[in-house]
Amino acid sequence: MAVLKTEIRSGVYYDSAKLMQLQRILADLPGVEDAGVVMGTESNKEILTHIDLVTPEVKSATTNDLVIVVRAENDKAAATAIGSVDEILSRRKEGSGEFRPRSLETAIQNLPDARWVLISVAGRFAAALAKDALSNGKHVFLFSDNVSVEEEIELKSIASQKGLLVMGPDCGTAIIKGACLGFANKVPAGPIGVVAAAGTGLQQVTSRIAQLGSGITHGIGTGGRDLSEKVGAVTFKMAVEVLSRDLETKVIVMVSKPPAPKIAEEMIKVALRAGKPVVVNFVSYRPSTTQRDNLWFATGMDDAARLAVELAKNPPTLVDDQELKLERFAKGQRYLRGLFSGGTLAYEAQHILADYLPRVYANAPINKENKMANSMASTEHSIIDLGEDEFTVGRLHPMMDNELRIRRLYEEAKDPDVAVIMMDVVIGYGSHPDPASELAPAIKTVIDEAEKAKRHLEVITVVTGTDDDPQTLKNQIKQLKDAGAWVSTSNEEVCRYAGRILRGLNAEATPTPTATQVDLASLQADVSGINIGLESFYENLKAQNVPAVHVEWSPPAGDNEKLKGILERMKAKQS
Amino acid sequence: MAVLKTEIRSGVYYDSAKLMQLQRILADLPGVEDAGVVMGTESNKEILTHIDLVTPEVKSATTNDLVIVVRAENDKAAATAIGSVDEILSRRKEGSGEFRPRSLETAIQNLPDARWVLISVAGRFAAALAKDALSNGKHVFLFSDNVSVEEEIELKSIASQKGLLVMGPDCGTAIIKGACLGFANKVPAGPIGVVAAAGTGLQQVTSRIAQLGSGITHGIGTGGRDLSEKVGAVTFKMAVEVLSRDLETKVIVMVSKPPAPKIAEEMIKVALRAGKPVVVNFVSYRPSTTQRDNLWFATGMDDAARLAVELAKNPPTLVDDQELKLERFAKGQRYLRGLFSGGTLAYEAQHILADYLPRVYANAPINKENKMANSMASTEHSIIDLGEDEFTVGRLHPMMDNELRIRRLYEEAKDPDVAVIMMDVVIGYGSHPDPASELAPAIKTVIDEAEKAKRHLEVITVVTGTDDDPQTLKNQIKQLKDAGAWVSTSNEEVCRYAGRILRGLNAEATPTPTATQVDLASLQADVSGINIGLESFYENLKAQNVPAVHVEWSPPAGDNEKLKGILERMKAKQS
Repeated sequence: MAVLKTEIRSGVYYDSAKLMQLQRILADLPGVEDAGVVMGTESNKEILTHIDLVTPEVKSATTNDLVIVVRAENDKAAATAIGSVDEILSRRKEGSGEFRPRSLETAIQNLPDARWVLISVAGRFAAALAKDALSNGKHVFLFSDNVSVEEEIELKSIASQKGLLVMGPDCGTAIIKGACLGFANKVPAGPIGVVAAAGTGLQQVTSRIAQLGSGITHGIGTGGRDLSEKVGAVTFKMAVEVLSRDLETKVIVMVSKPPAPKIAEEMIKVALRAGKPVVVNFVSYRPSTTQRDNLWFATGMDDAARLAVELAKNPPTLVDDQELKLERFAKGQRYLRGLFSGGTLAYEAQHILADYLPRVYANAPINKENKMANSMASTEHSIIDLGEDEFTVGRLHPMMDNELRIRRLYEEAKDPDVAVIMMDVVIGYGSHPDPASELAPAIKTVIDEAEKAKRHLEVITVVTGTDDDPQTLKNQIKQLKDAGAWVSTSNEEVCRYAGRILRGLNAEATPTPTATQVDLASLQADVSGINIGLESFYENLKAQNVPAVHVEWSPPAGDNEKLKGILERMKAKQS
Repeated sequence: MAVLKTEIRSGVYYDSAKLMQLQRILADLPGVEDAGVVMGTESNKEILTHIDLVTPEVKSATTNDLVIVVRAENDKAAATAIGSVDEILSRRKEGSGEFRPRSLETAIQNLPDARWVLISVAGRFAAALAKDALSNGKHVFLFSDNVSVEEEIELKSIASQKGLLVMGPDCGTAIIKGACLGFANKVPAGPIGVVAAAGTGLQQVTSRIAQLGSGITHGIGTGGRDLSEKVGAVTFKMAVEVLSRDLETKVIVMVSKPPAPKIAEEMIKVALRAGKPVVVNFVSYRPSTTQRDNLWFATGMDDAARLAVELAKNPPTLVDDQELKLERFAKGQRYLRGLFSGGTLAYEAQHILADYLPRVYANAPINKENKMANSMASTEHSIIDLGEDEFTVGRLHPMMDNELRIRRLYEEAKDPDVAVIMMDVVIGYGSHPDPASELAPAIKTVIDEAEKAKRHLEVITVVTGTDDDPQTLKNQIKQLKDAGAWVSTSNEEVCRYAGRILRGLNAEATPTPTATQVDLASLQADVSGINIGLESFYENLKAQNVPAVHVEWSPPAGDNEKLKGILERMKAKQS
């Protein structure tokens, strides 16, 4: 009959590695069947219950209690095990004769060049240490979880004023100039920079990049909560921004667990300003397309790695909004009018333009809230499908009869706020025998009249058809181009060209960034670090030949919460 | 001072081409500034108002009234114009001395091999004609719009019982064996079949295919409303099904205006059974990925054409579910348990598995409704992230300490309903020095024990890391493979493999199709057709050397609605 024996210790602190070590040693003692060594949280108590390590004392333990419980063959074995706890806990690793400061301050004196402080103590102590590190001008890798969101917001507010990165809390992974912080993989140096609100996300993407034969400049973790609305992606934005200034970084990859939708859109805007290819992979985020502007949307982490490696190898020519020559337009010209004969082309145009404009009205809208109040009168950005039933009762379809569209074209062109008019020209059997012969002169007229009025009207047309059609594609394109229209046979190309012009004409002044920029030199310098918490992180730095100091930290006031509170308040008064 | 003169004619019917012709001739008469000839619908009256062609008579016209209005320089010009209406309407095209039957029945006697009937009369007459065509065993190309959804449902119900296609109502485009019906482009014959609930969608995709140097077998339109929940994609499903049997069609493209979400998912299921590559392009539908099984998701119509041409040129090897050897599993084995240490990998797994399983529970779910009631006890398909805060208070992260995962592995493996266990093995600095040395023996044990219990347990692992990591990737993979695990370094690959197994084990019996299959031979035979409505559609058939008969149709009872109703009821009683 198995015997359970429990010991509860209050107000003590050991790091989790120490506790795991104790548990394993206890479980391996003769006569011991199983052992549990954990803090007395509800979920840990549930686990202990689940694996038959529960006693009344375990049940009444609290979060601040260290619970030690063994299940043994007999009383003696159980008692011996529990009796040896103190001796096991006092064992020290051999050969660690090096200097071990007991405070961050001393550690900094010891290694003043260290720009990175790694913190992995229990969550309730982590924020105070991180604040100390920031006030000393250090970037913080904050592995600890169970740090409150309020503390995270405060830390990141301080950091953004100082141009420092707070990676975390609950940040598992970072690779800075080849040095692995926390959980990270040895990845070759290369042209790809990764920013991740996703610990294993960063590991998976960087590992796949290495497996594909490429490498990275930096892998910057932010902590999973960084892309929540509350935190507002402070670290993520600063990280993307500094990588966009880093000439070594040719491609940026953004990785995240499911972000808040609003924050995802903000990150897209930040990425659009990066000036280099950015691969976006937000889990469960469904983009409208796979590529636009300087953005490539990946379907997953492995696809993100593949895309980044490919883009780094074959740098794409990025679209340049200078080519749009926005200066041609008069002040106030900013609206789109789409005059379509093809319903699907009109729908797809709305879908694509949503990437560029906050709202496009339509008589056949994709979203009901964008329904035009009156199909006869356009407002702001409007797309009218003149092939809709409302226009075709007892009247020929606009692909056969251009009259209604031409009337509308003249009308829209008179509106001084209109900058772009989009039209489709669909040829083939059934359609008008030569639509361009009627549309092109009208297009020429409205362009000329706008010019007379000191405006510029961009008329953009998509032509659908083939050269085997009775009207021939070539012939239609030529007539439209001669009239001054911008022509393509790709609806997507036409819509994105229009979208970029309109985005440019409707751009709000870029808001002044609130964060101080991260000093690029601090990322490019060789890493040295100060470690507080899990000793293995320190050992990993040493194993990588990264200069490092480990702080032999213990909680203030021996983890007596009340006393600690008094000390904190005293400290606050002093400063 | 301009003069307006109006004439209203009730109970008359002319096709829209005739009305356009009248309008143009009137507008070109000497002294006439503008002319309008339309049916008196609200929206047409609005347009007339908009272009200064409104009079009190116009305002009081009804939907069944033909409105003729001219604006002229003076009374005389206006009167002359209106006075010439009868003469203009009675003009007949020269040279049309050929036989013109006045009914569908006579036309069929005249061209009995015709399998296609094109209908483009005013909407209110269209359904009855389509029903006639179906009862004569003909496929229907129904161009007419303003046909009610109830009529559409009835027509498609009849058609699906007979294995006939009702393309429409409001179907603009079809290309059958090279013959253009309605609005369509001359596209070379080739290996791509297109089904489209989108008229210009079909034109744009097929034109782009031609521009890219490829061609099509058939382009089957369905009418935009076919993918609504009410209509239920009757024609779309029949069309995809017949193209999947057509050996000439190597790739199928599905195009649609924004479909009802439920119907989009149904279409995906139909496409999965096609047995050949299917390119999916539903406007504004956002897929979870760009490729899975035999499906390729396009970002737009142009991308759909590009993908189809590429797939036809370089046929991909499709996954074959035979390779999954589902017979290895015991009856009742059907659930997934994912035991993850990496949060992002666990999130991505949920995201990908949603393509295969209706519901996957998780302790850190993507959707709140999938939250596990108790993280300690799995139900059905469950993914547990053991690196979540609830498991790591005062406890090492599962990447460092495998104990909790191994305990859980043993537990899940005992559940006879479990078929697949997924695990991640994340190596690198910070992680356990040799995780596979602990995980692999446990995996071997559970696989062996399942075998003893006459079950098969598929343990699928994703390994994250590089060969430069202290644990080396190769070494970890080898240990896991030797233990019997299925191993990949791609999380997506791992999830899709698991997903396919679980989809197979949870497959419901395929429902017996309710529609009669379309006779493939009717698509493969040379097209000949009967046209009722727009004369230009008939002319187009002739221009393509397609044998055709045009019906000189006029509405029953001279478009007297009441009389027509009586006639209909009499007809119904007779039959």
